[in-house]
Amino acid sequence: MTRVIISSAKMQAICNDIRRSRKGTIGFVPTMGFLHEGHLSLMRKARNENDKVVVSIFVNPTQFGPKEDFKKYPRNFARDKQLCKKENIDFIFCPKEEDIYQRHHSTTVSVDGLTECLCGKSRPGHFCGVTTIVAKLFNIVSPDTAYFGQKDFQQTVVIKQMVKDLNFSTKIKVLPTIREKDGLAMSSRNSYLLSEERKDALVLYETLQMLKRKIKKGITNTKFLKKIAYKNIESKKTAKVDYIEIVDLCNLKSLKKIATKALIALAVKIGRVRLIDNIIVSAR
Amino acid sequence: MTRVIISSAKMQAICNDIRRSRKGTIGFVPTMGFLHEGHLSLMRKARNENDKVVVSIFVNPTQFGPKEDFKKYPRNFARDKQLCKKENIDFIFCPKEEDIYQRHHSTTVSVDGLTECLCGKSRPGHFCGVTTIVAKLFNIVSPDTAYFGQKDFQQTVVIKQMVKDLNFSTKIKVLPTIREKDGLAMSSRNSYLLSEERKDALVLYETLQMLKRKIKKGITNTKFLKKIAYKNIESKKTAKVDYIEIVDLCNLKSLKKIATKALIALAVKIGRVRLIDNIIVSAR
Repeated sequence: MTRVIISSAKMQAICNDIRRSRKGTIGFVPTMGFLHEGHLSLMRKARNENDKVVVSIFVNPTQFGPKEDFKKYPRNFARDKQLCKKENIDFIFCPKEEDIYQRHHSTTVSVDGLTECLCGKSRPGHFCGVTTIVAKLFNIVSPDTAYFGQKDFQQTVVIKQMVKDLNFSTKIKVLPTIREKDGLAMSSRNSYLLSEERKDALVLYETLQMLKRKIKKGITNTKFLKKIAYKNIESKKTAKVDYIEIVDLCNLKSLKKIATKALIALAVKIGRVRLIDNIIVSAR
Repeated sequence: MTRVIISSAKMQAICNDIRRSRKGTIGFVPTMGFLHEGHLSLMRKARNENDKVVVSIFVNPTQFGPKEDFKKYPRNFARDKQLCKKENIDFIFCPKEEDIYQRHHSTTVSVDGLTECLCGKSRPGHFCGVTTIVAKLFNIVSPDTAYFGQKDFQQTVVIKQMVKDLNFSTKIKVLPTIREKDGLAMSSRNSYLLSEERKDALVLYETLQMLKRKIKKGITNTKFLKKIAYKNIESKKTAKVDYIEIVDLCNLKSLKKIATKALIALAVKIGRVRLIDNIIVSAR
């Protein structure tokens, strides 16, 4: 049975009780809802590995910039609930904004050094919003393991750093990006795309694959690789590059040459829709 | 038996085990060591109210400013250990700095609005250091209740706000300031005072008592009260006022008039030693 919990105090009491009465491990999948196959893969893994599974659905206002899409972010709780039921999730935690950010809320959790680059550059404050809400959710749910998708690679690096630095006892697992048949990374924001844009959106995946082939052929100069990626993306009518970066997997610092492994991460505006994607590559 | 735990991983494992095996509640007294009767009163309360008691001893570098007394802060672990044994404390947690702040540590917890006034004004960054270490310690120890002294009133307000905002399930208890026979608030920093300074240091308590009497007599204009307090303190040769403030108990904002309850808080340099004290007063 899937129970829907709205109150954070109640959710915390339930999870404390699970802890104290040795009812087993808690797996946690934090989401902003409008669930897709990417979320479902996290939920299935959590279900498979834990006695109890909590999925949170909360469109967190503090991780959106003032000009971003908080208000129009897609929401469909009825559908999300059905999907959670189908995946045999124990608890859907869907708190109200005024429960999570009570009057006079004034505490933030922030990670320096990993949050200024990549998405942090064009979304200042975004990761502070993310780490603050994740810290709060971890304290409410006290999960043994929390599951995140690789599509938000920078987010996973930032959260791992926060977990280590603040001594959370939660283990972080990162699962592969789930893609549409043609390769487009699953994202709730894909629902914004008009039909022409949907075609152009494939350029993110295609560009990553193209770079992967170049690297396999021995091209490791990142300036060159970024240049051809940029050209490839901007050949699409509706596409505008926010960033293309080739960075170290651990510290997210730009690499001049790909020596061993690297992350290729990009953000592209397709019309008014900002999409991200990434792959991990290895020099041969 | 009092066990000394140095590793944060081990401390966390022990506390998780206490949680999971229903060995009862955990009381927690975070300290910077050099224990005095103020700490002991917290330890006794914790001992009285909990099945297990953890006392942490960690001189936290990040809450000291670059020109402050981190290096010379008084330390005496052997004596602290004896005192903990005598109070029947279960665990002394005394981690090394390199365990708590590992390489690349880059996460901070900060509370806005309550941390810029009073001690925050002359100690920028201090409360960010405090909230970050307390968040870490809470995640390591996962206490049911944590005990703090009223002497650090602003610290208790800031920590309560953090606990509420980040959904920690720890309850915060604040116990009265413990004083020397003559009224000087107990502090590890009192050990710095030379004999002449020790006499002058009494002016903090005396001034607070003097203000209390004035308020009892119906004087509620804080500008006037602060003026006479200032004059009283600076009449001592070695004393220099850092601040005298009369503020709201909840939001720490300055009051023009004392309507009901208020906090009188002050910080005074006695020679090179910065001391703080406070009392809660009520208009008649």
